[in-house]
Parts: sequence; C-alpha cells; structure tokens
Amino acid sequence: MFEHDADEPVLVLTEEQCWSLLERTKHGRLATAVGGAVDIFPVNFGLLEKCIYLRTAPGEKLAALTVHDSVAFEADGILSDEAWSVVVHGNAHQLQTSAEIELARSSGVSPWIPTAKESWVKIEVKHISGRHFRLGEQPETY
Amino acid sequence: MFEHDADEPVLVLTEEQCWSLLERTKHGRLATAVGGAVDIFPVNFGLLEKCIYLRTAPGEKLAALTVHDSVAFEADGILSDEAWSVVVHGNAHQLQTSAEIELARSSGVSPWIPTAKESWVKIEVKHISGRHFRLGEQPETY
Repeated sequence: MFEHDADEPVLVLTEEQCWSLLERTKHGRLATAVGGAVDIFPVNFGLLEKCIYLRTAPGEKLAALTVHDSVAFEADGILSDEAWSVVVHGNAHQLQTSAEIELARSSGVSPWIPTAKESWVKIEVKHISGRHFRLGEQPETY
Repeated sequence: MFEHDADEPVLVLTEEQCWSLLERTKHGRLATAVGGAVDIFPVNFGLLEKCIYLRTAPGEKLAALTVHDSVAFEADGILSDEAWSVVVHGNAHQLQTSAEIELARSSGVSPWIPTAKESWVKIEVKHISGRHFRLGEQPETY
C-alpha cells in the first residue's frame, strides 16, 4: 500500500490513503487552543462521511471547543519497521439535536471506559495530511 | 502498578507514575498554538532530569515554538484490556549551545527516519498528569 521511492524514508500520503488509515483506527488525540493555552486529549473516535465523531463526558475538552472551535487531530500507528501519522485540521462543535446524535452513534465510536458519556463532538475536516515512515537508524552527526 | 478502587474504570495517576510511564515510552505528540492556530505533531522523545527532548528537522514544528513557547505533549499506551495516557503542559524552546545539545543527546531520543536532524527542542515540564483506564463496554443510554 505504501510504495516509497528508492531510499526515501518518508512517503507523503494521498488524502485517500489518510482516510483509509483513519478508518482502521479507533484512537487519536485532539489538540485545542483556548486563549493561547494549548491542550491535548486522548480520544476514541468514529468516522462518518469524512467527519470525525467523539463521544465524551462533559469537561474541559468540551469547554475548550465552546470557546474556540479550530482544532487539530492526530492518529498514528507504529510497527517495528514502519510507522504512519495522519494529521487533521478542522472545526469542532458539540452536537445539539437528537437527529445529529443519532447519526453520530452510527459512526462506531467506542469509548475507553464504561461510564455514560452523552456529549458528542463532530470535527468537520478542512485539511488532512499524512506521512508514512520506513523506520531506520538515525545517522550520527557528531 | 495500577490499582483501581473497586469498579472504578479510571485511575488518576501520581506524578511518579506518569514519569515512570514516559520513561518506558519513545513516541508522543506535541501540540502547539500559534496565533490561535492549533497544530499537532507526532514526535519521538527522550527524557532527562524531568525534561522532554525532541530532535527534529527544521520546519513548521520549530517555527511554531519560536512564536509561542507554551506547548502540550501527550503519550499513551493501549493494550487489549487497559490503557494509559499522560499529558504534559510546559514551555518549549530550541537548544542553541553545543553544551545544551550535548546534554540533550544523552536523553536517548531515537527519531523515526534516517535523515540528519540537528535541531533540538527541550520541553520544561510545568504540569504532568495522567490516567489509567480499565477498558470496558460503554453502556448504551438510549
């Protein structure tokens, strides 16, 4: 799936490859900035029609989104000899209507812990990019 | 190592436990905010005297740090029945002197790809927190 040019350790992924990797992944990280204070949250997520859905308990994650809806999101996968990372930039907002929430439920979000979490967040993706890495030794530069 | 109270799916970690988890981890994500534009970068890191060190190629990651040095950093680990996440808030800056860089080299950073990366970033940790999760099914709340 990931054909690097000869000796190139990094492959810039197509949007299609990025989405394909996200579809096979359940766990990512959401970064928010409120008043210049950057924060980062581990999240489980689901995908539906190229939007990212998170189910979360009320708390600072949602408070951040209320104030500033521009977010970044990252997911990655690391194996012994390869790694990939996909980064998304977009706008996030809390879902309000039962119709929206019903739709979000079908995105397949599976939260980590067995507590009732009824707040839903949707990230509308403005930009998606990703890279695939052939892992190797760092040359020393002393 | 992680003793939850009965039926509690989430355990708030001590600072000592957070550092212990970071010490066993090589890969995390750096979140930055420049002019309200939040971004997130996958990074390999090393630890030394409770500071986080990154070795990176010149690019937007460093540009962001030049403008705004307040950052967030996250690392996590996910197994079949448990997961943990540690979040750090701190200040980041690029190392300038050869003495600083010499010290940073001993932190054990092992970048992903075999290109020469000679820019070093140090994160001075202001706050560290973490949680450990017993994974389970989310109760439905229809």
